[in-house]
Amino acid sequence: MVAQSTQELCINAIRFLSIDGVEKAKSGHPGLPMGCAPMSFVLWDQFMKFNPKNPKWLNRDRFVLSAGHGSMLLYSLLHLFGYDSVTIEDLKQFRQWKSKTPGHPENFVTPGVEVTTGPLGQGIANGVGLALAEAHLAAKYNKPDATLIDHYTYVILGDGCNMEGISGEAASLAGHWGLGKLIALYDDNHISIDGSTDVSFTEDVSKRYEAYGWHVQHVEDGNTDINAIAKAIEAAKAVTDKPSMIKITTTIGYGSPNKGNTAGVHGAALGASEVELTRKTLNWNYEPFVVPQEVYDHTNQAIARGAKAEADWNATLTAYKAKYPTEAAEFEQITSGKLPAKWADCLPSYTPADKPLASRKHSENCLNAIAKVLPQLIGGSADLTHSNLTEIHVSGDFQKGAYENRNVHFGVREHAMGAICNAIALHGTGLIPYGATFLIFSDYMRNSIRLSALSEARVIWVMTHDSIALGEDGPTHQPIEQVGSLRMIPDLMVFRPADGNETSGAYKVAVESEKYPSLLALTRQNLPNLEGSSIDAVAKGAYVLSCGFPPAELDLILIGTGSEVGLCVEAANKLKAEGKKVRVVSMPCWELFEAQSAEYKESVLPKAIKARVSVEAGTTFGWSKYVGDGGVSIGVDTFGASAPGDIIMEQFGFTVDNVIAKAKQVMG
Amino acid sequence: MVAQSTQELCINAIRFLSIDGVEKAKSGHPGLPMGCAPMSFVLWDQFMKFNPKNPKWLNRDRFVLSAGHGSMLLYSLLHLFGYDSVTIEDLKQFRQWKSKTPGHPENFVTPGVEVTTGPLGQGIANGVGLALAEAHLAAKYNKPDATLIDHYTYVILGDGCNMEGISGEAASLAGHWGLGKLIALYDDNHISIDGSTDVSFTEDVSKRYEAYGWHVQHVEDGNTDINAIAKAIEAAKAVTDKPSMIKITTTIGYGSPNKGNTAGVHGAALGASEVELTRKTLNWNYEPFVVPQEVYDHTNQAIARGAKAEADWNATLTAYKAKYPTEAAEFEQITSGKLPAKWADCLPSYTPADKPLASRKHSENCLNAIAKVLPQLIGGSADLTHSNLTEIHVSGDFQKGAYENRNVHFGVREHAMGAICNAIALHGTGLIPYGATFLIFSDYMRNSIRLSALSEARVIWVMTHDSIALGEDGPTHQPIEQVGSLRMIPDLMVFRPADGNETSGAYKVAVESEKYPSLLALTRQNLPNLEGSSIDAVAKGAYVLSCGFPPAELDLILIGTGSEVGLCVEAANKLKAEGKKVRVVSMPCWELFEAQSAEYKESVLPKAIKARVSVEAGTTFGWSKYVGDGGVSIGVDTFGASAPGDIIMEQFGFTVDNVIAKAKQVMG
Repeated sequence: MVAQSTQELCINAIRFLSIDGVEKAKSGHPGLPMGCAPMSFVLWDQFMKFNPKNPKWLNRDRFVLSAGHGSMLLYSLLHLFGYDSVTIEDLKQFRQWKSKTPGHPENFVTPGVEVTTGPLGQGIANGVGLALAEAHLAAKYNKPDATLIDHYTYVILGDGCNMEGISGEAASLAGHWGLGKLIALYDDNHISIDGSTDVSFTEDVSKRYEAYGWHVQHVEDGNTDINAIAKAIEAAKAVTDKPSMIKITTTIGYGSPNKGNTAGVHGAALGASEVELTRKTLNWNYEPFVVPQEVYDHTNQAIARGAKAEADWNATLTAYKAKYPTEAAEFEQITSGKLPAKWADCLPSYTPADKPLASRKHSENCLNAIAKVLPQLIGGSADLTHSNLTEIHVSGDFQKGAYENRNVHFGVREHAMGAICNAIALHGTGLIPYGATFLIFSDYMRNSIRLSALSEARVIWVMTHDSIALGEDGPTHQPIEQVGSLRMIPDLMVFRPADGNETSGAYKVAVESEKYPSLLALTRQNLPNLEGSSIDAVAKGAYVLSCGFPPAELDLILIGTGSEVGLCVEAANKLKAEGKKVRVVSMPCWELFEAQSAEYKESVLPKAIKARVSVEAGTTFGWSKYVGDGGVSIGVDTFGASAPGDIIMEQFGFTVDNVIAKAKQVMG
Repeated sequence: MVAQSTQELCINAIRFLSIDGVEKAKSGHPGLPMGCAPMSFVLWDQFMKFNPKNPKWLNRDRFVLSAGHGSMLLYSLLHLFGYDSVTIEDLKQFRQWKSKTPGHPENFVTPGVEVTTGPLGQGIANGVGLALAEAHLAAKYNKPDATLIDHYTYVILGDGCNMEGISGEAASLAGHWGLGKLIALYDDNHISIDGSTDVSFTEDVSKRYEAYGWHVQHVEDGNTDINAIAKAIEAAKAVTDKPSMIKITTTIGYGSPNKGNTAGVHGAALGASEVELTRKTLNWNYEPFVVPQEVYDHTNQAIARGAKAEADWNATLTAYKAKYPTEAAEFEQITSGKLPAKWADCLPSYTPADKPLASRKHSENCLNAIAKVLPQLIGGSADLTHSNLTEIHVSGDFQKGAYENRNVHFGVREHAMGAICNAIALHGTGLIPYGATFLIFSDYMRNSIRLSALSEARVIWVMTHDSIALGEDGPTHQPIEQVGSLRMIPDLMVFRPADGNETSGAYKVAVESEKYPSLLALTRQNLPNLEGSSIDAVAKGAYVLSCGFPPAELDLILIGTGSEVGLCVEAANKLKAEGKKVRVVSMPCWELFEAQSAEYKESVLPKAIKARVSVEAGTTFGWSKYVGDGGVSIGVDTFGASAPGDIIMEQFGFTVDNVIAKAKQVMG
């Protein structure tokens, strides 16, 4: 029996920790870690710059396991390379309740995990976002004699990631932008869940990435040719004007004599006897979860290496501060994650005398006001800049050679935009990303929006053309169920502001949110500025916009959101003229209202008042909660139609007369 | 002034009908029709096989305008080439209430429109589905001496379509399958809404399609070089083992001196003065909506051509029937769209004595039972065949050279799968497609699911792993808001069957639905077969599963769906033992319940009974409608967690004890 080199021992340690973790959990994906152990070891051992004792060090290299199902690979790496977040005990708790090692990598659970992956393709698109953030900050703050930001972003992705459309969208953007510090290692193992990739994936992936403008290499033996992997990463780093993709051909489940190179090793434990055979095949004579000291001695060198790297960087920062105090102050303000005091004073406020504007226009005014006081605001639209009204006027376009700019053109690529924005937020350097499209196309990026909420990424989603009132484009473009269905996503704040003040209020909450994303649903059409509307009240989710009557005497509560609040006010005024005691409640954000005290909720919607009408140009689904057994909802429960917006609104019952008719119905 | 050739006149007629339609509507997208008039004219005039007087003729070539915003191009073509569905008056009603010419092409409004497009990228993926359907039927029914099906599928797509990930997914599949009769004309006009494609789209599209395995050509002057376009289409047809992409470089808004080649002509009317200038530039001396007779004389030749083509085909069919009566009978049964009498007898039924199975397993049994009696069933999974359990055991895989098979491997490409399934249904030949993935990944294909409902495509969406009970994969994979948010989509029937009978019942409705899609949310975990469950009752959406008490005497109604109905039954039994009069309502499909009479609804959920508890392992959002002011909902309003499924269910409150506790709370 030949003694294994330290390198081989380390690689096998990664493999067997992964095997053992999955085996103990009786659940998980051992195949990828077994195949990717060599490439990931080379990367973390020879290339990656990180400080395991400070996983949040700003200038660390970022690592993304886009093929998130192979999470045991990442946990094994974190453990071996000295992170405190993953102990041997944690590895034994893989996929168990409240463990630090959940089924897929979750940045909010495990320090050292940069982004939450699992839904395929999201991770490589996150990688593009992380590289974008690096390029932006580097262009903005580095000086010829002082480099504050210069990290790489490494991604391991698999066949599944490459099949998903989002990866193509993101790769096209990365190529366009020439993000030279993005290096993707493609685990080319020819197996997906349905078996050989021959059944559905026979395209030439390398050629496709070349078409996107990437630098592409191929390592033919990713199982044992460590030097080839290292040389390829070296070569990728040397290409500075293009992202790099290294196709590394591997064997899924490498070392398993009966299950290697089959779909059987993709997503299930090997089983005791096959584990035994694999131990023999790879000459691994250690009990489960036992790692030879020689391995730790080697991998733990990362601790001193990382400490020195961070210390060197701190010295650079100190020198920078002395020489460039203004830039340093801004850099530290941004990266601290704390907002300047009174930043929100920049947000515009309105009175009913101000002219009616579309809330998308109010949004534009907010974005531009914020952009002036918060240099960390960066974002753009999926090719609808002048419809979404999301241009930052004081900045140029983020482009190759102009990374310091803040207007990002995502092209018609909503899904990649979503994952890129998530990663800009999770870059952890204080940047505040926003991404925009028509509200209907939130459907194209829904999983990314969901992941922004799950992974605690403070992103601002700017969604315009928020109802059938958009008019002529017709049902393919008219949101019906979108606002409601987005409200269902946990930890996502969905705003539908009624006018200028509420739009400012929504932005105030969105920017000040420390870890939750916000989504603004905004109109194409003009809206009046309402008497009684309030910037600050938005933070309560719902509030009494107009009333004047003691709660106990109320005949009716009208509840509206967004463009329909004005309609409620008009109807209320007519009903008041008839002697009815009517309250109008504006409800820009359900989630924030739910978070209020029972007393506050009762003060807005007194339980005793059963006559209630909700008015929202979208699905009525869910409104029963607020209108109750005695109320009715005016909404849209069919697809829309193509016609001028005012005609559609009238045809679908968004008229003062209809609100009054429904109100009289519930008042009995 | 040089006289225009008939060809030039025809092309300019397309341009000006489009210009005039947009101008009258003061809304729309004139740029694409002006640039694509030449390629579309050549295609329709020289190549397309269709019968304008029978838009549903089975063997017609299919045309898809993937860049659906250019709808006036399609309407102009339909009008000029003799379709009765679009008159000059209809063109004047572009984008008006109830017109035949809505903002984007809608197959359910305008005969001659094959699929509903507008959301970018869907159309090219629909094209792949139409070509798949053709290949499948051709392989199945054509004989060496009798060709029943041999049509082409032509698609015009733009830069926007090519930026969307869904187009890449679909193109990769088309290349893999070698769909030689799919021919895509790429309108390479260098302009998207944000301006020049230089700002976000600089990849080499042709090279990318080559990487997918397509045959690729380039027509450098798509504005005037009619012969080059025709030659390229000819060459594309000659390549029979690969799909073809013809990049045709055009000028958006060709002919408009000031707005051509700018984003300004993309999505807005030209304006009176620019229209005037364009008329001069293109030497078009006709009033708005006036078409010279010479044009009609030429384009209307399509009527006789089409009539003859269909007559020839009918003769072929007659001969086929005589020679191949068995195959002909099957072909006619399928294409008639009518199901064989008693087909549903094939669906399995169960009693409580039958062993517990996962509803995904019941689904597998249903699919296989149906596949035996309905040869029109075809579908597959997005690389989760053996998790979704969607394999048709009596068939092999649909692959290049084996198009007669019915198991389609979509790879990890949910979004393309969605659009492909939609197109198989809209092929109009009676095929019943199904597409499968984990329920959570309905988020990746949400717009396609929505379009199946909007465009009246009878697709069966098979979504497994439908709750947190899936366990270890954790929150990235656990649906919370998915079932609820899918229920919001108009005209989509969402089923969450409780056991074997209800799964059979869901398939019965899904298959018999003439124009609406169905989505089945199915468990990973085993479920008992319930006393009182019913195949037929599923069609009512909700029904009394167990009761035994007169409505007026009820103390409590428990409402459950899917895997939680069994929990309701257990809780009810305990409560009954305590003397409570409890009814259990199983509610597999909200949409169908809503469609029932008020009497039926009252019989299931008597208004007088206010003590109600709903139990569903998903968001509680929306349940207020059924539990009312006096009820409570047990659900999941946060993200899930990674742990074994039974532990998660317990931790999240899906226990008999918790149901009883909540029941006692509402009973007071």
